[in-house]
Amino acid sequence: MSLTYAVIGTGALGGFYGARLQRAGCEVHFLLRSDYNQVCDRGLKVESPEGNFQLTTVHAYPQAQQMPPCDVVILALKTTQNQLLSDLLPPVLKADGVVLVLQNGLGVEPFVANLVGNDRVMGGLCFLCANKVGPGHIRHLDYGAITLGEFAADYQAQGLTERMHRIAADFRQAKIPITLSDDLLLARWRKLVWNIPFNGLSVVLNAQVDALIQHPSTRQLAQQLMQEVVQIAASQNRVIPDQFVQTMLVDTETMKPYRTSMKLDFDLKRPMELETMYDQPLQVAEKTGVAAPQITMLYQQLQFLESKHPSQNSD
Amino acid sequence: MSLTYAVIGTGALGGFYGARLQRAGCEVHFLLRSDYNQVCDRGLKVESPEGNFQLTTVHAYPQAQQMPPCDVVILALKTTQNQLLSDLLPPVLKADGVVLVLQNGLGVEPFVANLVGNDRVMGGLCFLCANKVGPGHIRHLDYGAITLGEFAADYQAQGLTERMHRIAADFRQAKIPITLSDDLLLARWRKLVWNIPFNGLSVVLNAQVDALIQHPSTRQLAQQLMQEVVQIAASQNRVIPDQFVQTMLVDTETMKPYRTSMKLDFDLKRPMELETMYDQPLQVAEKTGVAAPQITMLYQQLQFLESKHPSQNSD
Repeated sequence: MSLTYAVIGTGALGGFYGARLQRAGCEVHFLLRSDYNQVCDRGLKVESPEGNFQLTTVHAYPQAQQMPPCDVVILALKTTQNQLLSDLLPPVLKADGVVLVLQNGLGVEPFVANLVGNDRVMGGLCFLCANKVGPGHIRHLDYGAITLGEFAADYQAQGLTERMHRIAADFRQAKIPITLSDDLLLARWRKLVWNIPFNGLSVVLNAQVDALIQHPSTRQLAQQLMQEVVQIAASQNRVIPDQFVQTMLVDTETMKPYRTSMKLDFDLKRPMELETMYDQPLQVAEKTGVAAPQITMLYQQLQFLESKHPSQNSD
Repeated sequence: MSLTYAVIGTGALGGFYGARLQRAGCEVHFLLRSDYNQVCDRGLKVESPEGNFQLTTVHAYPQAQQMPPCDVVILALKTTQNQLLSDLLPPVLKADGVVLVLQNGLGVEPFVANLVGNDRVMGGLCFLCANKVGPGHIRHLDYGAITLGEFAADYQAQGLTERMHRIAADFRQAKIPITLSDDLLLARWRKLVWNIPFNGLSVVLNAQVDALIQHPSTRQLAQQLMQEVVQIAASQNRVIPDQFVQTMLVDTETMKPYRTSMKLDFDLKRPMELETMYDQPLQVAEKTGVAAPQITMLYQQLQFLESKHPSQNSD
């Protein structure tokens, strides 16, 4: 039996992965809000350097209650909308199904586990540059790999499970590079090493990533912020070697000019994902007694900017 | 014998204090650059809540070499122009005269002392809101007090001297509130307690002081930055009590909406006074082994913004 998929949040990320899975032959059900009518009429369109394609018919739904329960529920909403999940998740998740949390930051799996149970949650870290450029119209710019890991209470490392391998097989069929991690929390911290400096600084300094990495002051600041992330991770027994920070910095130098997801949210007057990307990591730092003065400062600056810049919550 | 004054840098600050001194009967000589012709023709005009006035004739000079040597040389250039001082100061300073450094930040008196000798330098901290609104036209908005102190090698506290009292008498005659300090370095650090957080944050967050003090995140951040300043000062044996920080914060709450001098420079595309306000204090921190991660971060952010925002050096 092949797996069935639900995509909760058909923006750039959910739309891209869902459309790729459907193109590869998977049964995929899409929850949409503002784009529902257009997608019913015209389907989904994906532009990509790896090949453009169009899905003329998709299973589209305006409400979770109308969707069939699925084996894998891909959670691709912004974390700023997670208050909706208690209504959205239960109807679409099979009894033996799993929610695959493709969200940024920290604390997202425990939140979902609280709604559906610890054994029905996995997490995925996406390295994807994609924008939604119109209703049902996604532009994939670069990258796309996912790192997948099982969740368990207190993020105990779980090793690789049968269902991870089944999901990974579907993703690979869909040409989505996938890596399996036996330690989801470590994978999350590793992603935060990049996300915490570059998302926040791109908003505060109104800059793209290439400008930040090219100027010696902000390159050094990014490195300092990365080292604070590494220290908080270490307080949760997640060891990130110093070489990883160096590699991140060097890799960032060769990225194309790129607006981070938080900068995109800010520019589009959407709320920023401050809670999961800054507040949750800083709460860990406080609990474990790690000093993180520069992440704290970045978070304070972002809170100020968010307040000056009222966002309109939408999808 | 009454003292004669030279004003080096007739912008808002130099123009305001110089005009007040002349109005009170002092002989004042003004060095001007871009406003020279207009000021020769029309004099200086000062608008102020404490009374508007106009000086129809002033001693105006386009070059320091044309000025008479004076008893007191008021140095009111931006510190970003201090490379000019080796040419500007010697011609206007009497052998037994003194340079009164009315500049922001740290390291300015040693720089001047290097040109004219340790015993011919005093420093003043100005608490003044004033803008130049046109050629030879100054708008005084609020405040105006000066704290005056003698300089000596290594900023050894000097006590109050005869010449301080004489200068203070002239300033009081000119309705400029003046306080005499027996420890110039302490006075400088106390001023930096306010300047370091609010100048930098107003630029980085594109905000006026009232917005920064009203938001709890930036109020707290300002307090943290102030505490770092206090710690660096302490490493130079300048003790600033915690109550001072609290008082600064409370006083700031009642200030009118106000653009800091650095924000004004940034908005007008003038170079920011980063070296004296951030680099010099951070050099002290490094030398004395004090951690100042948040001031460091603010400086790094400002350096980035300065580089994105090429300034046009002018007076």
